[in-house]
Amino acid sequence: MFEEKIKELGFDLPEAAKPMAAYLPGVQSDNLIFTAGQIPVVKGELKYKGKVGLNLTLEEAQKAAQICVLNCLGVVKSITGSLDNIEQIVKLTVFVNSADNFTSQHLVANGASELLGEIFGEKGKHARSAVGVNELPVDSAVEIEMICRVKD
Amino acid sequence: MFEEKIKELGFDLPEAAKPMAAYLPGVQSDNLIFTAGQIPVVKGELKYKGKVGLNLTLEEAQKAAQICVLNCLGVVKSITGSLDNIEQIVKLTVFVNSADNFTSQHLVANGASELLGEIFGEKGKHARSAVGVNELPVDSAVEIEMICRVKD
Amino acid sequence: MFEEKIKELGFDLPEAAKPMAAYLPGVQSDNLIFTAGQIPVVKGELKYKGKVGLNLTLEEAQKAAQICVLNCLGVVKSITGSLDNIEQIVKLTVFVNSADNFTSQHLVANGASELLGEIFGEKGKHARSAVGVNELPVDSAVEIEMICRVKD
Repeated sequence: MFEEKIKELGFDLPEAAKPMAAYLPGVQSDNLIFTAGQIPVVKGELKYKGKVGLNLTLEEAQKAAQICVLNCLGVVKSITGSLDNIEQIVKLTVFVNSADNFTSQHLVANGASELLGEIFGEKGKHARSAVGVNELPVDSAVEIEMICRVKD
Repeated sequence: MFEEKIKELGFDLPEAAKPMAAYLPGVQSDNLIFTAGQIPVVKGELKYKGKVGLNLTLEEAQKAAQICVLNCLGVVKSITGSLDNIEQIVKLTVFVNSADNFTSQHLVANGASELLGEIFGEKGKHARSAVGVNELPVDSAVEIEMICRVKD
Repeated sequence: MFEEKIKELGFDLPEAAKPMAAYLPGVQSDNLIFTAGQIPVVKGELKYKGKVGLNLTLEEAQKAAQICVLNCLGVVKSITGSLDNIEQIVKLTVFVNSADNFTSQHLVANGASELLGEIFGEKGKHARSAVGVNELPVDSAVEIEMICRVKD
């Protein structure tokens, strides 16, 4: 059901991206899945790099955040089998590669948060932190990690 | 009880601040509440903005951290009904908008940690990370998120 | 068993470092232990400070990450009594004090992740976020926090 909704919205649910290093894309403990930080990679290619407010516009960064959160969902599916097992998106942490004086990290993060709302409705409403950072791995524009609750 | 303690200490427990974007102020999963990142907003007004070590002193940043953590408690109350349901403050993550060469993020975070100790005693003792960041949403001086454990 | 493995690998498991401020080194909630952010302190002395990519090489930063994660394990032992109670390392968050244009935070974090794999095998595989920050407490080069799952 939720995968079809993603397609209706014009997006694709990716396979879980292979970690860039010695770790797992996500780990489940009881009903919580903790994903690794996801960057805006599509089929192995980093789509948005550089500093938001300098190399990228807010609108581009919001698209980057959408890809990151879809990658988080790909991880969740790889662990629990189907997005339909999601009971609640619990928490996002959104790290934005920020140029000096760029202070709209919350608006970047909205790219991810609003997409979750469109896909999952009430189950997609989550707690969230959005912060700026001066550098991210491979100069990614955004990195997002997710905690979500799945059925027994 | 704990709300009275907050008043005795000369502070007010705020209502849960309305999120600045498409998310919830906090989400509960089993006995854990995850709050969204809280900034030093009082009644809709951002009280401390800019970079600690440049635009703000350490003492001002500690006061900002106090407001952030009170806002976290406001979120917890909005979800669980009363602060007296808190069993343990589990974890704080404290993001400090840091000027170059400002390296006392842990002392900024003490503003929040010590207040929790005064309010909750043993139940207020928590694990904590404090880090510097180069930018925060709306140029906030500090952003704090909380995980806390509440009764069944 | 796992403590012996740490020695075989040429490392020491430290005592839980005393927090630098008003908080606890870690808190357990049900089966999860949340550690405080750990910096590369050995016996009270900060071993790696400054910005990775400017004051430190990648290799030095990886050694710093190893010390941080050993300090996390010291915290876990102080709470649960023995590393043998660890069921799974669930999540690391790795904050790297990053010079401008240093974008290999994931490789710094590998210092910690690979060591966990060597010590714990499958139980050491975890989800992970690695991000750059412009400043850390006391000018530490790296700060790492851990969530791990322990037996009942």
